[in-house]
Amino acid sequence: MTDTAYGAFVPGPAVQAAGAVTGPLAGLSFAAKDLFDVAGLVTGCGNPDWARTHGPAEHHAWAVQRLLDAGATLRGRTITDEISLGLLGRNQFQGTPVNPRAPARLPGGSSSGSAAAVAGGLVTVALGTDSGGSVRVPSSFTGLYGIRPTHGLIPVDGMMTQSPSFDTVGFFTRTADVFQTVGEVLFGEDTLPATPVRLLVATDAFATADAAVSEALRPIMPSLRSIFPHCADITLAAEGLTVWREHQRRLQMIEFAATFRKWIDETNPRFSFEVGRSLALAALLTEADVAADRIFRGEVRSRIDGLLDGPSVLCLPTVPILPPLRDISLAAMAEAGGRIVTLTCIAGLTGLPQINLPIAETPDGIPVGLSLIGWRGGDRALLSLAATLSAIAPRVPA
Amino acid sequence: MTDTAYGAFVPGPAVQAAGAVTGPLAGLSFAAKDLFDVAGLVTGCGNPDWARTHGPAEHHAWAVQRLLDAGATLRGRTITDEISLGLLGRNQFQGTPVNPRAPARLPGGSSSGSAAAVAGGLVTVALGTDSGGSVRVPSSFTGLYGIRPTHGLIPVDGMMTQSPSFDTVGFFTRTADVFQTVGEVLFGEDTLPATPVRLLVATDAFATADAAVSEALRPIMPSLRSIFPHCADITLAAEGLTVWREHQRRLQMIEFAATFRKWIDETNPRFSFEVGRSLALAALLTEADVAADRIFRGEVRSRIDGLLDGPSVLCLPTVPILPPLRDISLAAMAEAGGRIVTLTCIAGLTGLPQINLPIAETPDGIPVGLSLIGWRGGDRALLSLAATLSAIAPRVPA
Repeated sequence: MTDTAYGAFVPGPAVQAAGAVTGPLAGLSFAAKDLFDVAGLVTGCGNPDWARTHGPAEHHAWAVQRLLDAGATLRGRTITDEISLGLLGRNQFQGTPVNPRAPARLPGGSSSGSAAAVAGGLVTVALGTDSGGSVRVPSSFTGLYGIRPTHGLIPVDGMMTQSPSFDTVGFFTRTADVFQTVGEVLFGEDTLPATPVRLLVATDAFATADAAVSEALRPIMPSLRSIFPHCADITLAAEGLTVWREHQRRLQMIEFAATFRKWIDETNPRFSFEVGRSLALAALLTEADVAADRIFRGEVRSRIDGLLDGPSVLCLPTVPILPPLRDISLAAMAEAGGRIVTLTCIAGLTGLPQINLPIAETPDGIPVGLSLIGWRGGDRALLSLAATLSAIAPRVPA
Repeated sequence: MTDTAYGAFVPGPAVQAAGAVTGPLAGLSFAAKDLFDVAGLVTGCGNPDWARTHGPAEHHAWAVQRLLDAGATLRGRTITDEISLGLLGRNQFQGTPVNPRAPARLPGGSSSGSAAAVAGGLVTVALGTDSGGSVRVPSSFTGLYGIRPTHGLIPVDGMMTQSPSFDTVGFFTRTADVFQTVGEVLFGEDTLPATPVRLLVATDAFATADAAVSEALRPIMPSLRSIFPHCADITLAAEGLTVWREHQRRLQMIEFAATFRKWIDETNPRFSFEVGRSLALAALLTEADVAADRIFRGEVRSRIDGLLDGPSVLCLPTVPILPPLRDISLAAMAEAGGRIVTLTCIAGLTGLPQINLPIAETPDGIPVGLSLIGWRGGDRALLSLAATLSAIAPRVPA
């Protein structure tokens, strides 16, 4: 790993695929998380035994092809947490990418290398995936624009899926204008051709945040509120966000246990203990264990869809903690993961789009992300908001 | 791996330590499972992250030093299942040793490389460890003499311990005479200077065996019975041996979870899924979960100590199944493990010595081991029996 590569790319020969000569992304470079197929190569998914037991891809993944067709050039494949199971960006096989904005701290995951590559200036755009927070967390930790789109909006064809009812294709950029342009390439038209009229500040989500996060976000709230005709403080989860989190975790676990069961049984793959434990505990769950979770998810979707039908957007910290230090213990990792999912579960359970805005930092320069969650299909409206806010919010040095 | 090395030795530079010029083992070669310290080297314990996070040993392990002092020369360190957690001999990091007697089948574990090295004729003796069956299973699968001594008889100093109340130092040989000589070096005097007067055939243990195992063992039973003044068929476990097995498993799990907890938490090591899952599930156990297991163990020890106080020995198949094929699924591995522990738990729970006698095989030459369990401290009596039986039992070609 060189100092300027941030350990972002998958080890091995360089990968490059030229984009179309013309198009909205002509001349831009991009990278794709190593969960996306690149024709002719084995998609490694962050685990050596996955790579060993899978053959080369015949076609580019849908999202890769779309960016190439729009003129962007693929410059490499980026490191992911093993089979995308992780939120902190540690990979015990391929190395943990560096967080260019906070080198002593973790980059966030599972789209760790994509975030490192964009934050480190190696590429302009990177594709990631987000099932439980895997774009939102690293974009917050590395100070990037990042989106988890409406579930189902971008096809997952050619992408390693993990938890189909949660999996999404997302992306990272350093600037709001590129963020918007890439969205125009990957998304269709919004379901509502509307700009949001109301900002809902989720006070219970803010209450979960550590002081360092709250204090970094507080100064930007007046600017944020000022661009909305109406603002309201709300309590999102009467039952408590930790209850939401447990619904998300169980539902995601039963899905990824099913996804990987046959491969694991046939190949007895190697995993870091953290990942092996998740898979082992997930395999204990039965449909009966998650019946109540499914009912809850249906209810909360209806409830939040109604809430955002203004059209409104919901504001919350992306992550309630600062990026953890690189050498934390497993127990501390589990604690951090629990804290994080308490907030990432909101878009996860509802399937709603969420963007991270890199518009705050601690006094010593550690990025702190603010999130907006939009209505179902309101992805482009969120990107417009990002552009608007980039003009008025206090800026973080690029 | 060369055809004649059977993948038995730990990858890396050759290891050699000359034995004393004179002594009962002068001129013999031996190998030690990579759980035993060799001065100046890092004991790898079958896992790359164990090796990475531990420093070199200052001294030889007690058993290694004892063999050197008796004149044997150390020729190498042998592959083990990761941190000794396994009974089949698969190692997803360093490779799975070949079973020289049945190359399509697993060698058994966790002392897999020690068994392969002796069965393949690379060394005369090899040290192994046995907590849940790790000498008995590979000696049965590869057609060797093997002993799990009385618990506590051989010091575990300088050996990676796993489950202290189960861990033992054992060894493998191809012949009964070397088996006895090594025992004289490693053991003190027996607690009873007696030869057994009674053979107890554990019919419930034989009933757990597959037909291929039973049929291979049946022809040798008359010779075995003929050397004892008295013989009796008994049912060992009124509650069923599968109940004994679950007591063994829980007690062993809570011990190895405690042994490895801190190291795992600090280093998030990589494991094959099989091993990671064992550790993850073991970590869920509490003292309350095993309270009944502890009581049971105390009761069964008293009961079996009384039974063997004749002095008597107990006869059973070492393993109720043939060595599984090398490429079996995880589900089949778990099933095989469960079958095996149904018999290995007997000496495990009681702490009594057990030897494997390599005196049977299937019609196509797959080894099938017969076991004798002796009274507490009757280890040398067992080795004498092995010598006696080697003279009268139907012989398997060496």
